[in-house]
Amino acid sequence: MVFVGFPAISRHFCKFLNMSKSALVILAPGAEEMEFIIAADVLRRAGIKVTVAGLNDAEPVKCSRDVQILPDTSLAKVSSDKFDVVVLPGGLGGSNAMAESTVVGEILKSQESSGGLIAAICAAPTVLAKHGIASGKSLTSYPSMKPQLADQYSYVDDKSVVKDGNLITSRGPGTAYEFALKIAEELAGKEKVQEVAKGLLVAYN
Amino acid sequence: MVFVGFPAISRHFCKFLNMSKSALVILAPGAEEMEFIIAADVLRRAGIKVTVAGLNDAEPVKCSRDVQILPDTSLAKVSSDKFDVVVLPGGLGGSNAMAESTVVGEILKSQESSGGLIAAICAAPTVLAKHGIASGKSLTSYPSMKPQLADQYSYVDDKSVVKDGNLITSRGPGTAYEFALKIAEELAGKEKVQEVAKGLLVAYN
Repeated sequence: MVFVGFPAISRHFCKFLNMSKSALVILAPGAEEMEFIIAADVLRRAGIKVTVAGLNDAEPVKCSRDVQILPDTSLAKVSSDKFDVVVLPGGLGGSNAMAESTVVGEILKSQESSGGLIAAICAAPTVLAKHGIASGKSLTSYPSMKPQLADQYSYVDDKSVVKDGNLITSRGPGTAYEFALKIAEELAGKEKVQEVAKGLLVAYN
Repeated sequence: MVFVGFPAISRHFCKFLNMSKSALVILAPGAEEMEFIIAADVLRRAGIKVTVAGLNDAEPVKCSRDVQILPDTSLAKVSSDKFDVVVLPGGLGGSNAMAESTVVGEILKSQESSGGLIAAICAAPTVLAKHGIASGKSLTSYPSMKPQLADQYSYVDDKSVVKDGNLITSRGPGTAYEFALKIAEELAGKEKVQEVAKGLLVAYN
C-alpha cells in the first residue's frame, strides 16, 4: 500500500516542475499568426508558462494575414527576465523586424550564453543568422530562406524539425505542430507531450 | 499567338472571382485559437475576403489558451450581411457561447436557407445541433462531442473532414489545416488550394 501513493506524488511533482518551466514567444508585426499561435497554445497545453511579448509595445500586433493579436506584455518589460525557451515565430515581416531589433539580439545572446533553449521556425532562423547566434549548428528553415543560412549553418533539407544542442528549428506552418511539440518535449517530457498530442489529434511518437 | 493570352486572362478572371468570395469567422470567448486562426489565415491565403467577427463585441477575445485576438468587427454589425461561408471554430467555451447566441442561430438559419456553406470544427458542430441546422446530414466533430450529435446526424468517425452538401465539418486542431483547405477548395478551387498548400508545406491532393 505504501507504494500506491508514489506514482501520484511523482505526477504531482512533475506537474509542479512543468509549471515552473517558462517560454518567451516574441510577437512582431508581420509574424505568421499560425506559427505564433500553435507555439503559444501547444506550450500552454503542456503546462509551460508562456509570455507573449510584443516586439515594439503591448498594443495589438498585426500579423502576416491581418489577424491582430494582443500580446501579454511588451518585450522591453521582460527583456531582462529568464526563460527556459525563447521562441521566434516566422513570417517574413516579423522575422525582418526581429533581425533589426537590438533587444532581440541581446535576449538571444543572453539565452545562448546561459545555455537556454532557442527555437525558430520558417523565416525566423534568419534572425539567428543576423544576430550571430548558434553559428555552425545544424538547422532548417522555410525552404526559400536556405540561401541566407547555408554558409553560416549546417543546413538540413529533409527534416521537419531539427534539434542541435539548445537550438530547435523548423520549416513552416505545416510543421508548426511538430515544432511546438518538440519544444514541449524538451521542457515537459515525452509523457506530457503524448497526452497533449492526443488531445490535439496530432500524431506523435 | 491569339491563344497565348487566354490562360492569363482566365487566371485573372478566376482571381477576380476568388477575391469576391467571402467568409465570416465567428470568434467567441473560449474559442480554440489554433482552429480559429488556421481557418482565417488559410482562407485569406486563398484570396477569400475574411471577416473576423467578435461574438459579443469588437473588443479583444480571450481564447481557450489565453491568447487574445482583436476581431475585425462585432457580429452585430455584420449579422445581416451575406457571406459565402460561415465558419465556426471549436473550443468548448466558444462553442457553448455560440450555441447560446440567438444571433448565431439566426445567421446559421439564414445561411442554410440561402444555400450558403457552413463549416464547423471540433466542438462547434454542437452549435449546429443546438440551433437545429443541417439535421440528418453526415458530419464529424471532436470525438468526445459524438454523444451530443449521433442522434441528430449521421456521425462519421473515420474521416478528418466531412462534406455533405453545404456542410463541412472536422475534428480538432490536428485536422484544422485539412478543414481550412477544404473550405478554400469549395470557394477558390483546387488549383488555388494546391498553391496555398504548397506555400504552407502542407500535403494536399
